[in-house]
Amino acid sequence: MDAVPLPKGFSAAGIKCGVKPGTDKQDLAVFVSDRDCAAAGVFTTNLVCGAPVKVSRDRLPRSTARAVVINAGNANACTGEQGITDAKAMAAVMATALNCAADDVLVASTGVIGRFLPMDKLTASIPQAIAAATPHGLMDAATAIMTTDTVQKLATRTWEWNGQPVRITGVCKGAAMIAPNMATMLCTIMTDAQITAEQARKGIALAVRDSFNCISVDGHESTSDSVFLLANGASGQSPQNDADWALFQGALDGVAQDLSMQIIKDAEGASHFVQIDVTGCRTRDEAFKIAKAVADSPLVKTAICGADPNWGRVVSAAGYAGVPLKEENISLEMNGFPLYEAGRPLPFDAAVVSKNLRDNRDVLIELKLTLGEQSVRYWTSDLTKAYVELNADYTT
Amino acid sequence: MDAVPLPKGFSAAGIKCGVKPGTDKQDLAVFVSDRDCAAAGVFTTNLVCGAPVKVSRDRLPRSTARAVVINAGNANACTGEQGITDAKAMAAVMATALNCAADDVLVASTGVIGRFLPMDKLTASIPQAIAAATPHGLMDAATAIMTTDTVQKLATRTWEWNGQPVRITGVCKGAAMIAPNMATMLCTIMTDAQITAEQARKGIALAVRDSFNCISVDGHESTSDSVFLLANGASGQSPQNDADWALFQGALDGVAQDLSMQIIKDAEGASHFVQIDVTGCRTRDEAFKIAKAVADSPLVKTAICGADPNWGRVVSAAGYAGVPLKEENISLEMNGFPLYEAGRPLPFDAAVVSKNLRDNRDVLIELKLTLGEQSVRYWTSDLTKAYVELNADYTT
Repeated sequence: MDAVPLPKGFSAAGIKCGVKPGTDKQDLAVFVSDRDCAAAGVFTTNLVCGAPVKVSRDRLPRSTARAVVINAGNANACTGEQGITDAKAMAAVMATALNCAADDVLVASTGVIGRFLPMDKLTASIPQAIAAATPHGLMDAATAIMTTDTVQKLATRTWEWNGQPVRITGVCKGAAMIAPNMATMLCTIMTDAQITAEQARKGIALAVRDSFNCISVDGHESTSDSVFLLANGASGQSPQNDADWALFQGALDGVAQDLSMQIIKDAEGASHFVQIDVTGCRTRDEAFKIAKAVADSPLVKTAICGADPNWGRVVSAAGYAGVPLKEENISLEMNGFPLYEAGRPLPFDAAVVSKNLRDNRDVLIELKLTLGEQSVRYWTSDLTKAYVELNADYTT
Repeated sequence: MDAVPLPKGFSAAGIKCGVKPGTDKQDLAVFVSDRDCAAAGVFTTNLVCGAPVKVSRDRLPRSTARAVVINAGNANACTGEQGITDAKAMAAVMATALNCAADDVLVASTGVIGRFLPMDKLTASIPQAIAAATPHGLMDAATAIMTTDTVQKLATRTWEWNGQPVRITGVCKGAAMIAPNMATMLCTIMTDAQITAEQARKGIALAVRDSFNCISVDGHESTSDSVFLLANGASGQSPQNDADWALFQGALDGVAQDLSMQIIKDAEGASHFVQIDVTGCRTRDEAFKIAKAVADSPLVKTAICGADPNWGRVVSAAGYAGVPLKEENISLEMNGFPLYEAGRPLPFDAAVVSKNLRDNRDVLIELKLTLGEQSVRYWTSDLTKAYVELNADYTT
């Protein structure tokens, strides 16, 4: 039994294809369903987006999806017309081997921007990957989509409909170029639930809002981010009522949030995992803006790296978030220590709080406003010297 | 003769007052005019702003300003009602010593957020600073406003009106928490030109737009940023026509841009000075958004730190700037090397470009769009391990 099993009717594989030069790492993953899937996707909103994003976006939502093919090591982004041709060719090779329509295959690429794909290698390897796909191949596939990730990222949930078990399982990659509205992360979520393409579209949009769209590592929105949901119905069970649907959405949200947190916990060079809870806003959007401004501030992120309870940086980031507010509306706690209340600094023992931040990898920032009832939860990482080192010499 | 002289009728001093604990550094600066000044200011737009910002903003523009008092080491921000009382008291002590109205003194503070000012030390030291002020005290004053700055920042221009010399001289500080709409920078610009308060207001607004509002170190907009312009008329000369006004605005712009570039060249931990020229946009605002997105990206900044010509990060930042565009609208050069043209990657020798970036402290990024005729010039720094080290342990 795999630690994280695939749902019924799905198989997966990860093999070495040679897109990543000078390494023995796996770099080609396939996810295959033995029957048609209802499928939907969410993609980067970056106007400069990868060719696979354009190709897959055009194909979704649909009721007859069969597979996803993903390479790591090359994002096939900023590659013009040739890039589109190559992305379509990747899917076409898959479709030929699976004996399905080309449009029923979805495609994604992650890695360096601005280089053409080595199509000879991909064309030769894709049929091998399909041949290698098994119901137990998820971990290999999760490995093959990694770039600077240091761990595989997997999540699963089960529930019962009509007394029968139904499963949803997701896999993703991502460790930098992570910003809301998706970043250089790729995610495939598979379920054997029987739902429609329109239900898949609604479900994944909602799940992404409170997961992949509430994380950032560096605020740089990538060109390639894609989340796919494939539902093949192999459980034979479909939702009969609102309660059934709530079970499904809850499982989907859970998988998406698990995977989002795994991305932030594996953030490049990070030494802290930071949860920012902003409460008491007039709207969710206001809470989101404040959380994002705090999460994106290099000064907040370096302070956390240094275990420095420099709360002024948090409060001042809230001040430029574009949300109408006064200092008196703001109170702040870090890891349970009250530091700022209704616009006034509170006395605290800096050495004690600093030690707490140093001893704990997890940091909780609670920004409590007095403007309304809406809130948001946001995850980010700190900014370390290791992040700079990892990103200062990536292509050369 | 000072390298950077004050205009006629101005004196300045910088002394040690003890706001910065445990150091012998100067931390109190005064700028005094021997007669009334037309004065205007531009301040941070952060809604969480320092008490001195609130106090000085209320007093400007005015026709009877006499002096500016600035302390370093403590920003007097997020300090509630007590902070306002303290900022007003700083000005009042100055005013008493100068025998002028309290409202004719402007005040600024820079340093750590969220601590109360040591008013006993300031009250005792301000009269000493006024007594120490001389026409040759500018360098001491420039030293006393420094926080993490490593060099003093000064600039001056002269021109002739009616055959008579007129001078404008500015001094500023700033090395981090630098973002457009002002950051933790403070600037005092003095001129012996004779202009009105309304002319001062218009002139400084225009000068700041293309200088201090076009720089960023880390995108964190501070609570304390203030630019003051004081015009005391001691040259006896005033602008008689548009050509005269153009001479003045040109000198003011020159001083403001000189000082802005000095801030970026002294950016915390920086190893490169980066100029971003965005051209061919429909509006200046569009060009500004693109330049800011590129400048704020940690991935662009770390790539430059590592002399990595990773142009995909630049192009992808343009893609999420919020400006409607297509990849085909974009071409990119770095230090004169064409890397990307009309949506397609160009072949280039990565080793040659990387060596060029490693050998030059100055980096020029040219993003050429085909949307219109508007452009913007923006300055930023790279992101280095030294920046992280400097900011990971600031307050504790």
